[in-house]
Amino acid sequence: MSFITDLQAVWSRHDSLLCVGLDPEPSRFPAVLADHPDPVFAFCKAIVDATAAHACAFKPQIAHFAALAAEDALERLIAYIHEAHPGIPVILDAKRGDIGSTAARYAVEAFDRYQADAVTLNPYLGRDSAEPFLERADKGVILLCHTSNPGAADLQDLDVGGRPLYQHVAKIIAESWNGHGNCALVTGATWPGQLGEVRTLVGDMPLLVPGIGAQGGDVAEVIRHGATADGTGLMISSSRAIIYAGQGEDYALAAGRAASDLKDQINAQRNSPAR
Amino acid sequence: MSFITDLQAVWSRHDSLLCVGLDPEPSRFPAVLADHPDPVFAFCKAIVDATAAHACAFKPQIAHFAALAAEDALERLIAYIHEAHPGIPVILDAKRGDIGSTAARYAVEAFDRYQADAVTLNPYLGRDSAEPFLERADKGVILLCHTSNPGAADLQDLDVGGRPLYQHVAKIIAESWNGHGNCALVTGATWPGQLGEVRTLVGDMPLLVPGIGAQGGDVAEVIRHGATADGTGLMISSSRAIIYAGQGEDYALAAGRAASDLKDQINAQRNSPAR
Repeated sequence: MSFITDLQAVWSRHDSLLCVGLDPEPSRFPAVLADHPDPVFAFCKAIVDATAAHACAFKPQIAHFAALAAEDALERLIAYIHEAHPGIPVILDAKRGDIGSTAARYAVEAFDRYQADAVTLNPYLGRDSAEPFLERADKGVILLCHTSNPGAADLQDLDVGGRPLYQHVAKIIAESWNGHGNCALVTGATWPGQLGEVRTLVGDMPLLVPGIGAQGGDVAEVIRHGATADGTGLMISSSRAIIYAGQGEDYALAAGRAASDLKDQINAQRNSPAR
Repeated sequence: MSFITDLQAVWSRHDSLLCVGLDPEPSRFPAVLADHPDPVFAFCKAIVDATAAHACAFKPQIAHFAALAAEDALERLIAYIHEAHPGIPVILDAKRGDIGSTAARYAVEAFDRYQADAVTLNPYLGRDSAEPFLERADKGVILLCHTSNPGAADLQDLDVGGRPLYQHVAKIIAESWNGHGNCALVTGATWPGQLGEVRTLVGDMPLLVPGIGAQGGDVAEVIRHGATADGTGLMISSSRAIIYAGQGEDYALAAGRAASDLKDQINAQRNSPAR
C-alpha cells in the first residue's frame, strides 16, 4: 500500500473527502483537560477517535507541537492513529524545504521518526530539494501550489511568461516531479478559480484544500472547481471548526458531530445535479 | 540590542564574516564520542567553543536535530552559546513558512522556545506568512532569495516581467517587508552573478551566503559580488568543512583551525586591492 492507494481506498470506504487537521492549542482546550498530565496527546486522541469514521486523512500541523516542545506527543499520536485507525493516512503538515543533505534529514524526520504517510513541502527551492521525498514512492509528497492566505498573491500570482507562477508550479510537478505518482498539491479553498485552473493542469492528482470555514472558502465552489470526474480527488481540510467545536466535557462528541456535518455538506455538493 | 546590531558589532569585534553551521550527523562524529551519553550536545559545544573567536554567527540546522529527536540538545546548545559566547547571534536555520496562526506558532518555536536571534524563512507564501516574525523587531528574519543548490533555477530564475523571480523577491523584501530593518536574505555562493544583482537591489542588507567549499562557491567571488562598500554585509556560512575537519580526539582543535583559516581567506579577499 502507499499513501495514494490508501487515500483512494478511504475516500470510498468512508465516503468522505474530509481531512481533519490537528492543531492543538492548550489555551483552547476544554476545562476538563486542565489538570491532565498529557493534555496534548489526550486531546488529539479523543478528537481522532471521534472523527475517524468521517475522515479521509488526519493532518497534524507540526508548528503547534513544536511551539509546545511536544514532539513526543506527536510521535505517540501518529503511532496511535496507525494502530487504532489503520488505513487512514496521516499527513505531516510541515511545509519543509531545504537542499541536498538537509532535505534528506527532513525526510527522515517526517517518514522515519514520525512515520507520516505524507508530508507537505514548499517548492521554492526546486526539484532537487524535493528529491529525497519523491524517491520514497510509498509516501505522499504534497507541494504548496496556491495557498489559502491573502498574501498568496504576492509571489504565487506573479506572471511568468503569460502564466501565473502557481500554474507553472502545478505544471512542472505534474509533468516532471511526479515520476513515482506520489505527488499532490496544496490549493486553498479561498481561491476557487485558481483551484479550477490547477485541476485542469494536473488531471486526477489529489489536491489538499485548506481554507474552508473561518478563512472564507466555500464548499460548493471547492467541489465544483476541484473535484475529479468521479467526485473525488480532494482532501478538504478543516481544523479549528472541528476540533474546537465544543468546549464542554463532550468536546470530542461535538468534534465528531462537526466532522460528520461537514462530510455531509461536502457529499451534498458532490451529489448535486448542478455539479 | 537586536540581531542586526549584534551582527554588526561582532563583524567588527571578531573581524570575521564567517558563520559556522552546526549540522550534527552522529555517523560523522569522532570515535572519542562513541560512548558519550549526550553526543550531539557535546560535539556541538566543543565545535562552538573552538570556533567562536572566528565566527560572526552560529547557524544550527534544525533538520539535523529533528531527525535525531534531539530538540532538547538544540535548546541546551543555543542556551549555552548565549551564556558562554554572548553577542554572537544564533541563526536557527529552519526555512519555515506557513500562514497566520501557524506562522505565529513557528515564531514561538524559533524565538521563544529555542531563543534564536534570527530564523530562516521561505517567502513563497507571501508577506502575511512572514508577519509574525517581522514584527519581532529585535529578531532577524532571513528570507530565501536565491539558494545555493542546482534546482534553485527551477523557480527562482523564472522571468517575471523582465526580471527573475529571485530579484522580485529581493525587491519586495527590501521595499516592503523590511519596515523594522530586521530582514536579511539567503543568496548562495554558487551563483555569484545573482549575488551581485541582489546586493545592488538591497543596499546594505545582510546576506547569508551558503555554498562555499564542497558546493563549489568561491570566496573571492562572494566578496567581490556580495560585500558592502565597508567590506561587511555578509554571513558566509560553512558547516561540514569546519565541523568535520578532524576525525581524531583533537576534532575541536581541527575545527578551530579550519574556521580560522577560512576567516583569514575571507579577510584576504576583503583587503585585496583588486576588490
